Amino acid sequence: MIRHTVVFTLRHAEGSLKEKSFLRDAQVLGDIPGVSGFEQFRQVNPRTDYRFGFSMEFADRAAYEGYNAHPRHLSFVRERWAHEVERFMEIDTEPV
Amino acid sequence: MIRHTVVFTLRHAEGSLKEKSFLRDAQVLGDIPGVSGFEQFRQVNPRTDYRFGFSMEFADRAAYEGYNAHPRHLSFVRERWAHEVERFMEIDTEPV
Repeated sequence: MIRHTVVFTLRHAEGSLKEKSFLRDAQVLGDIPGVSGFEQFRQVNPRTDYRFGFSMEFADRAAYEGYNAHPRHLSFVRERWAHEVERFMEIDTEPV
Repeated sequence: MIRHTVVFTLRHAEGSLKEKSFLRDAQVLGDIPGVSGFEQFRQVNPRTDYRFGFSMEFADRAAYEGYNAHPRHLSFVRERWAHEVERFMEIDTEPV
């Protein structure tokens, strides 16, 4: 099992409609085949400069690659993520 | 609910006994009152330069502060973490 987490900061003002729109529309990612346990969260540790995050689980590497290559993921990245996210960091975890 | 995640890189060589010892001894953190769902993992995203992580959940802010101030946590930080961890980043998440 692989848990994929991405933390990020949007270009939009805090609490803005554009921020809400981005988070709402990103929920399509959770319905892509192979994705389970999709979650959205706020990052609240004051020493870490990212404001939001998404996390999701994949059964294996093939499921993860299927998500990465899925047209709905690619179009979300191209049309929304690339324009609205200021910076981000990915964390992929596997059990020790 | 707050999920606390820390990703980190050890000063120890990959696969070394010191690495194993650190991960094994860190399991005491999971038994501190207020902590639930303690997990250890490898960070495997190649674009992110942290090799391990721990995550745990707290019911609320008071439980999190109780953990931070707990003698077993403080002694682990002072005796092990401060000497064996090269760099780290914390991510604390709350539902959007």
